[in-house]
Amino acid sequence: MSVVRLDIEYDGSRFAGWAAQPGQRTCEGILAHALEVILRAPVELHVAGRTDTGVHATGQVASFGCDQDIDPRRLTKSLAGILPPDLGVWKVGLCSAAFDARASAIGRIYEYRVLTGPRSPLRRACVFHHPRTLNLDAMTAAARACVGQHDFTAFTPTKTEHVFFDRTVRQCGWAVRADELVLRIEADAFLRNMVRILVGTMLEVGRGIRPAQEMTELLRGAPRSAAGDTAPAHALTLVGVRYPETTSGAPILGHAE
Amino acid sequence: MSVVRLDIEYDGSRFAGWAAQPGQRTCEGILAHALEVILRAPVELHVAGRTDTGVHATGQVASFGCDQDIDPRRLTKSLAGILPPDLGVWKVGLCSAAFDARASAIGRIYEYRVLTGPRSPLRRACVFHHPRTLNLDAMTAAARACVGQHDFTAFTPTKTEHVFFDRTVRQCGWAVRADELVLRIEADAFLRNMVRILVGTMLEVGRGIRPAQEMTELLRGAPRSAAGDTAPAHALTLVGVRYPETTSGAPILGHAE
Repeated sequence: MSVVRLDIEYDGSRFAGWAAQPGQRTCEGILAHALEVILRAPVELHVAGRTDTGVHATGQVASFGCDQDIDPRRLTKSLAGILPPDLGVWKVGLCSAAFDARASAIGRIYEYRVLTGPRSPLRRACVFHHPRTLNLDAMTAAARACVGQHDFTAFTPTKTEHVFFDRTVRQCGWAVRADELVLRIEADAFLRNMVRILVGTMLEVGRGIRPAQEMTELLRGAPRSAAGDTAPAHALTLVGVRYPETTSGAPILGHAE
Repeated sequence: MSVVRLDIEYDGSRFAGWAAQPGQRTCEGILAHALEVILRAPVELHVAGRTDTGVHATGQVASFGCDQDIDPRRLTKSLAGILPPDLGVWKVGLCSAAFDARASAIGRIYEYRVLTGPRSPLRRACVFHHPRTLNLDAMTAAARACVGQHDFTAFTPTKTEHVFFDRTVRQCGWAVRADELVLRIEADAFLRNMVRILVGTMLEVGRGIRPAQEMTELLRGAPRSAAGDTAPAHALTLVGVRYPETTSGAPILGHAE
């Protein structure tokens, strides 16, 4: 029994998210089907980040167990021949039997891109156009407040499948990249919509309609209604997954980086 | 009479190039129509780079003369409200009567993006996926040979509207940007398909099927058949236009840079 690791990139625009759903075009559905065609056996995919509808990935990781001998080069080629243009597996690797893309992951890294200047036709599928004057210092203070273990109840919908709301944020900060502000955030795991609600709230901080200090209050289990809007999905990208170094020597970041 | 300068970005994927053609969706057609709706008068656009079908721009420049008083902020807003998502004017400026986006331009700057590793779903609209081992030193030598004044007959289709084939290349070089090789080339002006045939030829140099020294020969008016393939349009972007500093103080490069 071998465990196969897939490093995946997708343009989320035309997917109803990662997780397979009947009658919907999903990343999991498309990829599992392709693998079943190639391997002539059903596969059960385990994934590091169950991204929502419209969210992109450059560094998504999935794995599956398989009782066949897998030639990574051959499987890479077969997948390239069968997958649609908006989903690609950029690396196939064999792992120890203990590896599980979901259970072994100790960190997920997302980026959220905000364009405050004129809109950009060429980047419209990947950035949130938000032409406002933003106070970067205030947004940086709000981002810094997120680091550590907190109760993120305010940053996920009230109607929820989650049971525990504590998450540990390892890094969270805004960077200026040309004419964009980019939030980069890593946590052990994320609640549904968590990054998008954090971004929506921090943009209110940036606009001066909410003080940065309020983040501390929100991170103590405040209700959803106390936080800001949910920022649009299409500007969010899962850029990488962190594993313990002993689990996998493969690179953790998306293939553009 | 005032002259208005427009700095323009577009995603060329769904345009039949810049130049207006009956029955085709073109950048010029869409933009001129939008201006005529806003100004209630016909406009004649002069453009720095007549890009081909599928070619993108971040730093295209067009101008038009107008006998109305133009408020640049207001025109920017009106255009934002009327232009489609894949074409945007990111700056409107008033220029001296002597300014003409086409006639005043002394340099056009293009970039061509080549991805040699695994294909990238998120960048598929803007890069040429060419999974080959390329010799960057040889390609750099070939690029360097292009600098200066040469006869580029080999780098444009035989059936041509051009009369003179000499062009002066001011800079031409390959840069490594993450997992991409990017050609950046500036010339006083370009022949039709010139950058794409230069890239197609330099990729053959990179693959070792054509010696770099051959460029010198090709640049002495060799026939089209002597040069390489025409690389795909969708990986080419007009990133900027150079004007004499006395003509216009406006920035010359595309809005992402």
